[in-house]
Amino acid sequence: MARKIIIDTDPGIDDAMAIFLALQSPEVEVIGLTTIYGNVYTSLATRNALHLLEVAGRTDIPVAEGSHVTITKGTKLRIASFVHGADGLGNQNFLPPSGKPIELSAAAFMIEQANQYPGEVTVVALGPLTNVALAIEEDPAFAEKIGQIVLLGGAFLVNGNVNPAAEANIFGDPEAADIVFTSGADVVAVGLNVTHQVVLTELDRAKLEQSNGKFAQYLSKILDVYFAYHQESYLMKGVYLHDPTAILAAIDPSLMTFMEGVVRVQTSGITRGLTILYNRQKRFGEYTEWTDKPTSKVAVTVDAPAVVKLVMDRLMES
Amino acid sequence: MARKIIIDTDPGIDDAMAIFLALQSPEVEVIGLTTIYGNVYTSLATRNALHLLEVAGRTDIPVAEGSHVTITKGTKLRIASFVHGADGLGNQNFLPPSGKPIELSAAAFMIEQANQYPGEVTVVALGPLTNVALAIEEDPAFAEKIGQIVLLGGAFLVNGNVNPAAEANIFGDPEAADIVFTSGADVVAVGLNVTHQVVLTELDRAKLEQSNGKFAQYLSKILDVYFAYHQESYLMKGVYLHDPTAILAAIDPSLMTFMEGVVRVQTSGITRGLTILYNRQKRFGEYTEWTDKPTSKVAVTVDAPAVVKLVMDRLMES
Repeated sequence: MARKIIIDTDPGIDDAMAIFLALQSPEVEVIGLTTIYGNVYTSLATRNALHLLEVAGRTDIPVAEGSHVTITKGTKLRIASFVHGADGLGNQNFLPPSGKPIELSAAAFMIEQANQYPGEVTVVALGPLTNVALAIEEDPAFAEKIGQIVLLGGAFLVNGNVNPAAEANIFGDPEAADIVFTSGADVVAVGLNVTHQVVLTELDRAKLEQSNGKFAQYLSKILDVYFAYHQESYLMKGVYLHDPTAILAAIDPSLMTFMEGVVRVQTSGITRGLTILYNRQKRFGEYTEWTDKPTSKVAVTVDAPAVVKLVMDRLMES
Repeated sequence: MARKIIIDTDPGIDDAMAIFLALQSPEVEVIGLTTIYGNVYTSLATRNALHLLEVAGRTDIPVAEGSHVTITKGTKLRIASFVHGADGLGNQNFLPPSGKPIELSAAAFMIEQANQYPGEVTVVALGPLTNVALAIEEDPAFAEKIGQIVLLGGAFLVNGNVNPAAEANIFGDPEAADIVFTSGADVVAVGLNVTHQVVLTELDRAKLEQSNGKFAQYLSKILDVYFAYHQESYLMKGVYLHDPTAILAAIDPSLMTFMEGVVRVQTSGITRGLTILYNRQKRFGEYTEWTDKPTSKVAVTVDAPAVVKLVMDRLMES
């Protein structure tokens, strides 16, 4: 039976890839999209989520709009329009979608679905973790009832992408991320240490362009801005497949290996947004902020060629 | 010509090894010991430094007492007596030394020597960096005049030893450490990522015990407490050679490889004392706290067998 997933998303070029990938994957049933700020503001994320479902012909899937602000209100949002374009989808000026989000908020929708299908729903969180943290705070049973939370976030033992300490999704709402990591839910984190190994090349992009698949056609157009950003920031001719890799962690965890340990998030100072995984090699005599906290699974290796192949194959199918 | 070195130290069992190792190394001339809190309080560090020089028959070397408090006064000191014993030297109840420290403070002594021999003096800092930071603050030319600062500190891309984020020396005075790393001096950092690869085994210890060398004899006695701590905290039958490895980084840097980049220290929150090295793989569009700061050299690999052999050989010579 296909696993039910809710994709919490801020589309976003690689979010578009991830959503299409999930829709093309028989192992999962996308039961809803929830939206969040990050690559774009939340209202634009909602518009883009609705748009992408219309492109896919899947307007049967509900979209629930998420938080417009961080969980600790008053934090200035960091919107990555310089990565994804002002519209979040490669500056293609798509027509507005005709659909509308449902009445429920993202957090309320997650809680509703977790209650309806206890232990059966996976949330794949592709942006800052505000909605997931709100669901955890609003329903004390959520952490237990949700099947799994697979999150794209963190930079484990590598530099971040906002600054040397912090990865963008965790940096976007560090307080929310710390709530999620210490919630006791089954949390799987896929961070930059893994996603920076998964690169879509210019050759792959040319293949998408030549493919007749509608997703491949659509994506090959919006990828321009994303390639330009990677060229500028990383001096590379390729793009990182952050969000699709997180989707595949939910679909087929055998593509990666994981280390289990307590993850805490730094919420102040110059390393705000930093994730620190305690690897349990040392027994600390003193109490630490990692002591007696629930563990998460953190991706440490990935079969990158297999991930890229799976992404390409499924996106090129019609 | 032998390189002049000042050892800033908080003896400490591995400090004792490091000091003896330096005294046995023809490549360097130990021109002074300066003392700091860390493994013990500063007054005991001074007493132990004088004691160790008397054991070595090197009372010609001056000892300058360092700061009794962190550079931001009021921070509670963390003293690692549970690692080194209440006396810092394995609870051996040695007689008090007959010598006395010189009148100059540690920072004043460092400044004096850097002025007397500009570019020729290396400070090897084996404890929290308060004294070095005070020298930098008290004399704006110190960072330029000091030849090199080799420091034992930091946990680069690995967990710390105070908690999962922080290594003990940096945790001891994070504000001072950040001053040193951003001072523009020639800074070489040897962190846990390297020193946790350099292990003295029980077999090595037995060799020290059987050796006739006075240093080997002395050390084999005080190592008990240090071995017990490693057994308890790391479940290992061996001890890390933190301080001796830092001494060898000053003596023969070819034993290690280094990465150059900007290092900043987190000074607040749950990761207080964390060191973050920016590896320059990404060009950040935004200003970060690492932007335009001076770089340091951070040890990343070590020829551990060669380091252990050199330490053993020199400590077993009479």
